Amino acid sequence: MNLVKIAHVPPVAVGHKAMVADAVKAMVENGVGAVAIVEEGEIKGIFSERDVMKKVIYQSLAPDRTLVSDVMTKDVESIRSDMSSTEALRLMMDRHIRHLPIVDEQGKILGILSIRNLLHSLVEELEDSVNTITSYFNADGGGG
Amino acid sequence: MNLVKIAHVPPVAVGHKAMVADAVKAMVENGVGAVAIVEEGEIKGIFSERDVMKKVIYQSLAPDRTLVSDVMTKDVESIRSDMSSTEALRLMMDRHIRHLPIVDEQGKILGILSIRNLLHSLVEELEDSVNTITSYFNADGGGG
Repeated sequence: MNLVKIAHVPPVAVGHKAMVADAVKAMVENGVGAVAIVEEGEIKGIFSERDVMKKVIYQSLAPDRTLVSDVMTKDVESIRSDMSSTEALRLMMDRHIRHLPIVDEQGKILGILSIRNLLHSLVEELEDSVNTITSYFNADGGGG
Repeated sequence: MNLVKIAHVPPVAVGHKAMVADAVKAMVENGVGAVAIVEEGEIKGIFSERDVMKKVIYQSLAPDRTLVSDVMTKDVESIRSDMSSTEALRLMMDRHIRHLPIVDEQGKILGILSIRNLLHSLVEELEDSVNTITSYFNADGGGG
């Protein structure tokens, strides 16, 4: 499976001059847990609902007066779309990250892969495999 | 595997008179994404980092002046510790929930199961199975 097919495409994104409150609005209205901070198509950072708690509320910062670029995670781990889904899952689990931006050869962001969508897709694949194997063993050898 | 062994035990919890800011503090300092709201050992609700975004910041409420009991999720889905891990995973994926309180026969909360810990545990189990099968097929029939 191509990872772009199960990613959120295009990514939910805000500009680098957005406030935390704008990023939260984008996340809530799109039903996602992270936004990319993008400048001219290039990803500058990622900001997640975990960051809202740890870097804003816990630090008593005001969401409407804090620049998202001041609290985003820079040096974001990103992947290419030809990575295998199990490799992506392993990476997310090892690093404890829930969202991975998918970028093209030029480093432009194509979408954001969430561990939730990845997991759903992997479970569906696994069920298909199990069904195929089961029907193979249940086949009585007849045609039709 | 018994689910209590992979759950966060005891659960991260706050009292029903706690403010959202207290709940966020408890989540951040314990590295979890949800807290139980507990009154005399009984679970009254659950409050997650997603709720912080949707029900507090997005609604422009002040975390230090909003009672967590006013924004928590009531009627929480809870499970018993003898549920199988795959059944728990299925339930969480179907309902789009990341945290499930585990309760005993009397309804007292024992811990909170997160989909992250569940996933890690399932992958480990799967790897053990694959290793067992692989070594079976690689065995050359000799003893020792």
